[in-house]
Amino acid sequence: MTNRQWLLSERPIGMVSEKNFSLMESAMPVPDAAKGEVLIKNLMLSFDPAMRGWMDDKPSYLPPVAINEAMRAAGIGQVIESSNPDLPKGTLVQGMVGWQEYLTAGPQSMFPPNALPEGTPPNIALSVLGGTSLTAYFGLLRIGEPKAGDTVVVSGAAGATGSAAAQIAKIKGCKVIGIAGGKEKCDWLLNAGLDAVVDYKSENISQRLAELCPDGINIFFDNVGGDALEAAIENAADNARFILCGSISNYNDANPKPGPKNMFYLISKRIRMQGFIMFDYIEEVDVAMADLIQWLTDGKLQWREDIQEGFENIPKTLLRLFDGSNQGKQLLKLADPE
Amino acid sequence: MTNRQWLLSERPIGMVSEKNFSLMESAMPVPDAAKGEVLIKNLMLSFDPAMRGWMDDKPSYLPPVAINEAMRAAGIGQVIESSNPDLPKGTLVQGMVGWQEYLTAGPQSMFPPNALPEGTPPNIALSVLGGTSLTAYFGLLRIGEPKAGDTVVVSGAAGATGSAAAQIAKIKGCKVIGIAGGKEKCDWLLNAGLDAVVDYKSENISQRLAELCPDGINIFFDNVGGDALEAAIENAADNARFILCGSISNYNDANPKPGPKNMFYLISKRIRMQGFIMFDYIEEVDVAMADLIQWLTDGKLQWREDIQEGFENIPKTLLRLFDGSNQGKQLLKLADPE
Repeated sequence: MTNRQWLLSERPIGMVSEKNFSLMESAMPVPDAAKGEVLIKNLMLSFDPAMRGWMDDKPSYLPPVAINEAMRAAGIGQVIESSNPDLPKGTLVQGMVGWQEYLTAGPQSMFPPNALPEGTPPNIALSVLGGTSLTAYFGLLRIGEPKAGDTVVVSGAAGATGSAAAQIAKIKGCKVIGIAGGKEKCDWLLNAGLDAVVDYKSENISQRLAELCPDGINIFFDNVGGDALEAAIENAADNARFILCGSISNYNDANPKPGPKNMFYLISKRIRMQGFIMFDYIEEVDVAMADLIQWLTDGKLQWREDIQEGFENIPKTLLRLFDGSNQGKQLLKLADPE
Repeated sequence: MTNRQWLLSERPIGMVSEKNFSLMESAMPVPDAAKGEVLIKNLMLSFDPAMRGWMDDKPSYLPPVAINEAMRAAGIGQVIESSNPDLPKGTLVQGMVGWQEYLTAGPQSMFPPNALPEGTPPNIALSVLGGTSLTAYFGLLRIGEPKAGDTVVVSGAAGATGSAAAQIAKIKGCKVIGIAGGKEKCDWLLNAGLDAVVDYKSENISQRLAELCPDGINIFFDNVGGDALEAAIENAADNARFILCGSISNYNDANPKPGPKNMFYLISKRIRMQGFIMFDYIEEVDVAMADLIQWLTDGKLQWREDIQEGFENIPKTLLRLFDGSNQGKQLLKLADPE
């Protein structure tokens, strides 16, 4: 029995490409029973913009993926061999399963696998109940501190994190404007209940925000950086909160682009700008998950999944995030549970 | 009897110059007794980098100075004619007295004059007990939330606000590094008790900060913007607080310069960056002033004053702030109290 892996074979300079990865066949890994390890068969992979950052050899909140290591990725697998009573054979687990068909992991692994709550389908666990929704939840509620009536603007609003942030802001009684690329994504956002949208592919972001936010932006949830961030600073209200969640417009720059020209407004408008990482709120996940499940049950959260298939298509599926061709949460299915 | 005023006669494009102001002789203003106005003779003017922003026709925390209006400036005057029992003749007052020899003001003015606490010399009221020290106090303590042992970096550290912020951080038990231009300013800062200094005129800021802050910067108090801000982001510790107080490196740009290239670190390092204006803390001034007076009495606050003289020298004294030739708090004396 062999295993297949997609290794990070070289660090991308600028835009990530399929060439940065190489396919490796190797012997099936053997779990170390003494360490409580299990053998996991991967079922579904999650693709997230942050993965681009893990490929760079820079200090960050996680160590970079090593050269010739299987690419790090969140996903869902199933335990197919176990001597660990907490994770018996057949258990669905989530965690950093990586770009591989099989892996071994246990409580002492860098990313210990967690059992999926009984009955949660893998796609749901990775999309509307996944890390992107938790990220939206903590960023918006813990950093943004939305009040009913606030004007909230979300960039990358049609993405998995952005669409969750925008809808949670609606649930909290805010006026919500999404920035997204293309009519199809914008229409979907209006249908999901947003008050207005800006199509950055055909509209001037700053000008449209000025029209749509006559009293200024109280909260900006940023997944994009660059022009969207500068436009939001330009149109911020006094005491605005800027939640810096991602900066997808910059992740593939070979040379870092300059920041916003209008940073002085942070002073004159007393803007509070704060970056965050979902992992920092890990102890509050149960509370967040209960809210998300409630909203989902009440029909207040819409979401979309873009499910590709096939082990061979893993690297090219990552690229869909950066050319904007993904329609909702990007996933790839490897196998069905047994 | 006539009054003399320096009017803002045109808005500067790029670096402010003496040409932007014109000298005006006019009739002595007459206080409106019905409105409780008094006639004030100006004694001393304060010069602050923020004045450059007031000259631009942009929305900000104060309306711009109007064309052909006396330039707005904080200062100290003396009441020489009064029918207001709260401000009897002879009272020293502080407020936005402007670039003029005489003015009228009362409780309904845009900036009502306040009596100076009995016995406070005008220069002290404008320097170590002035708005710059209050700005340092509120920014550092309310936004920075320093803890003993934190590494604090201050840009524009030899300026009035910066030197107060740096010394208050020392009082709070922090390790404090100042960034300033030139050996003379750096030596003065070391003498005032700072742990280390970076001379931006002869040293690479980011490289020196990396050496001086091996565990990263916990708090950055920024008066400068530009390269100093980018270098501080580069060397920030996780969860750093960035207090945006001023951006003197950008105030005279005809075209706004781009912002920091490394904004992504705000996310990966979870930096909280917040701008503020001293006026927002006006209700806490008494508390702050009591602390400042105590520290001053205990010999824990050093300061320097650069006192120019002469009504005719007012515009050129402003320029001293922007070429760095001021040695400490920039003031100009017009007259002694009677």
